[in-house]
Amino acid sequence: MHQICLSLLSGLCLCLVFLCSAEEGLEFPNFDGKDRVLDINERNYKKALKRYDLLCLFYHEPLSANKGVQKQFQMTELVLELTAQVLEYKDIGFGMVDSQKDAKVARKLGLGEVGSLYIFKDDRVIEFDGELSADTLVEFLLDVLEDPVEMISNAMELRAFERMEEDIRLIGYFKGEDSYYKAFQEASERFQPYVRFFATFDKSVAKHLSLKMNEVNFYEPFMEEPAILPGRPLSEMDIVEFVNQHRRATLRKLRAENMFETWEDDMDGIHIVAFAEEEDPDGYEFLEILKDVARDNTNNPELSIVWIDPDDFPLLTTYWEKTFKLDLFRPQIGVVNVTDAASVWLDMSNDEDLPTAEELEDWIEDVLSGRVNTEDDLKSADNQDVTGDSDKSHDSDDSDDDDDDY
Amino acid sequence: MHQICLSLLSGLCLCLVFLCSAEEGLEFPNFDGKDRVLDINERNYKKALKRYDLLCLFYHEPLSANKGVQKQFQMTELVLELTAQVLEYKDIGFGMVDSQKDAKVARKLGLGEVGSLYIFKDDRVIEFDGELSADTLVEFLLDVLEDPVEMISNAMELRAFERMEEDIRLIGYFKGEDSYYKAFQEASERFQPYVRFFATFDKSVAKHLSLKMNEVNFYEPFMEEPAILPGRPLSEMDIVEFVNQHRRATLRKLRAENMFETWEDDMDGIHIVAFAEEEDPDGYEFLEILKDVARDNTNNPELSIVWIDPDDFPLLTTYWEKTFKLDLFRPQIGVVNVTDAASVWLDMSNDEDLPTAEELEDWIEDVLSGRVNTEDDLKSADNQDVTGDSDKSHDSDDSDDDDDDY
Repeated sequence: MHQICLSLLSGLCLCLVFLCSAEEGLEFPNFDGKDRVLDINERNYKKALKRYDLLCLFYHEPLSANKGVQKQFQMTELVLELTAQVLEYKDIGFGMVDSQKDAKVARKLGLGEVGSLYIFKDDRVIEFDGELSADTLVEFLLDVLEDPVEMISNAMELRAFERMEEDIRLIGYFKGEDSYYKAFQEASERFQPYVRFFATFDKSVAKHLSLKMNEVNFYEPFMEEPAILPGRPLSEMDIVEFVNQHRRATLRKLRAENMFETWEDDMDGIHIVAFAEEEDPDGYEFLEILKDVARDNTNNPELSIVWIDPDDFPLLTTYWEKTFKLDLFRPQIGVVNVTDAASVWLDMSNDEDLPTAEELEDWIEDVLSGRVNTEDDLKSADNQDVTGDSDKSHDSDDSDDDDDDY
Repeated sequence: MHQICLSLLSGLCLCLVFLCSAEEGLEFPNFDGKDRVLDINERNYKKALKRYDLLCLFYHEPLSANKGVQKQFQMTELVLELTAQVLEYKDIGFGMVDSQKDAKVARKLGLGEVGSLYIFKDDRVIEFDGELSADTLVEFLLDVLEDPVEMISNAMELRAFERMEEDIRLIGYFKGEDSYYKAFQEASERFQPYVRFFATFDKSVAKHLSLKMNEVNFYEPFMEEPAILPGRPLSEMDIVEFVNQHRRATLRKLRAENMFETWEDDMDGIHIVAFAEEEDPDGYEFLEILKDVARDNTNNPELSIVWIDPDDFPLLTTYWEKTFKLDLFRPQIGVVNVTDAASVWLDMSNDEDLPTAEELEDWIEDVLSGRVNTEDDLKSADNQDVTGDSDKSHDSDDSDDDDDDY
C-alpha cells in the first residue's frame, strides 16, 4: 500500500497532514472528494464569469501522455479542489482552461501564460504567479476579496501603516468618497493585492503625513521618506502610470504570492540576492545594513536587491544551500545568474564582523560594473584550485568551511 | 484518471504543487519516491539513535483496516518522506514506531502520546505537537539544529532582541563560557526551540538591559519589563523551574509549531481567543489594546488570551468563520469551549469603534466570573429568537450581519 501510494504520488511536491487533537477548534480541512473545479469551455465560461464574485481559472497545457506531467497536473487540480472547498462559502468559482481544446475561450478571456492562474474580479483580471499551494492561494484570494483601499482614521492605525515597511504603499488624503477618491480607488483595483492602497479623510492623520488635500504619497519598501505623486487632483491613469514606473524597488522582499514574477523580473539576467533571517540577531543586523545601502541608492535604477528570509521558504532552504553552496544559518549576499543559477557570494565568514554599509556598497559597485560576476563561479567549478581573477579586496570564492556535506 | 486520483487522495488534508519557472533558482522539491523513513524496531533503534545528530520518530497507532485512517497514515508518511528528502544533507534520521508492534521500544524510548512526533537530540527528547506539514516540520527541525543560545554582542543585535516581543525569551549576562554560562546553556537545551535563550558577554549590552553579572532576565511575551530570576549565579535547575512556572503567558500567540499543545493547555475547558491580523490597521489597533490589557493583568494566573493571526492559518480561516459564526476580516474576541467549540463573542460590529482597554477588561472580568459564558451560544442555537440572559452592557449573541452565507 505504501509503495502504491508513493509511486502514485511521486509527482507530489508537498503534501501536508495534521495531527488530530481530541479538542475542538483547530480542525484542518480534509479534502472531501467532491468536484468543485469546473471544466471551462465555450458553453459555460460566460455563465461562470457572471455567477461568481471571483472566478479563478488555471490556464494549462493539453493533457500529456507523460506520466510525470500527468501527476503534476493532478496535483494542481487537487490544490484547486481543496482551495475551492475551503472557500466554498465565499462565492469564488474555480475552473481549468485547456490551451488547445479551449484556445478560443482563452483568447476571448485574454489568458496569456500557460501555467498561470487568472483571477477575474468585476471587469479586471489579476494574474497569480506565486507558489501554487492551497495556503498561499487561499490567503491570496482572501486578500483579493477585501476592499482594495484601507482607511486610516486614527493615530494607532497610522502607526500600523508606518510599520508596513516591506510593502509598496500609497496613501491619499481626500475629503470623502468624492470623485478624486473614486479615481484613487479605481487605480487601487488594478494593483490589488500586490500594491497596498490606503486613504484617510482625517485632517490630523493627513497633517502627520504632511499630506495636502487630494495628494497621494508613494512609499517604496524600506524607504523612510515617501515620494509625492506629481499634481493634484490625480486621475486614475496618473496614479497607475506612477506606480508602474516605480514598482521595482531598490530592496524587495521575495514573497510566496508572487515569487516567480519577482524572479523573472531580473536585471540583465542576474539578481543580487541577500539571505537574512529577520528573527535572528545576525540576520536583523545585516538587514538593517542592507536597508541603509538601499536608502543611499534608491535613485539608481540599475540596482534592485532581492531579500529572501529563509524562514518564509523552509522547503527551499536546503535547495538554496546546495545550489549556491551556502550556509543559510547566517546572512549572505551574492549575485545569481538566473539562467544557470551560477553564483558568487561575498565572504562574510567572520560572524562577528558583518560588512559596513560602505563595504557593501563597494561590493555592489563591483557587481554592477561587472568586476564581480558569476563567471567566477563557473571558473571555480571548472578548476577548484583556481580562485579566478576576482577582485582582490573581496574574496568571492565559495569557501565551504561550514558545509562539508556538499 | 481524475476520479482515481481524487478518490485515492481523499484522505489528503493539504497538498501543494508549484508553478514551474523557466528560470533557475526557485525549484521546489518534488518527492523523488526514495524511501528514507525507517521502520524502527528493537533491532535498529539503538543504531539509529547513535547514527544521527537528530532522530525524529513518529509514534503511531497500529495499521488500521479503516481506509480513511490508512490514507491519513500514508499522508503522514509522505510528509515525513518529503521532510527527510529536503533535509537529506543535515544528518537527521526519520522513523516510525508502531504503538503495538513496537511497544517495548516505545517504552524504552519514553514515547508517550500516540500521534506525536519525538525528536531525539543528544540525551534529550523534544515533542513536536504542531501542524504536521512538511514546511512547518522542516522549519522546526532547522531551528532545533541551531545553537540553543544566541549571542547578543552589539547595539543592533540588541535591537533585534528587543523586537521579538512575541517570544518567551531569557537573556543572561556572563563573563564568558564559564560554568554559569554552561548551566544556562544546559537549561536552554531543555526548551529549545519553544523558549528562546540569549546571552551576552558584553558589558554595554548588559548595562543597557540593567543586567548584573550572572543575572538572567525572563521576558514574557508582549510585556515591557522583564522578570529577574531570583538569585545568582543560577543553576540549571533554578532556570528550568522558573521557566516551567512562568511559561503560560497572559497573551500568547498561536503558532503552527505547537498549536495543538497550546490549545490543549486550556483554562478550565475554555480559551479566551482573539483574532487580529497584525498587518491590518484595525487588527493592529486591536492587538495594541489587547497588549495593554495583558500588561495590566500579567499577574492574574487565571488569564491567558490566545491571539490568532488569521494570516498564519489560511486553511483554518473559513473553518473558524463557520464554526464560530464570525467575520474574520475584522478583529474579534470571544470565549471558546474546547470540548464542543461553543463560543460567545464580544460585539464589535461598529468598525470605527473598537473597545477601549477598560471595556475589554470589564468583558474579560465577566468571562472569568462566568457572567459571560458559552452556554449562551448553546441557548441561542436552541432558540434563535432568545438572546439569553447575557450581560446587558455587552451584546454577546452572534449577529450575522456580515456572513449571511452561514
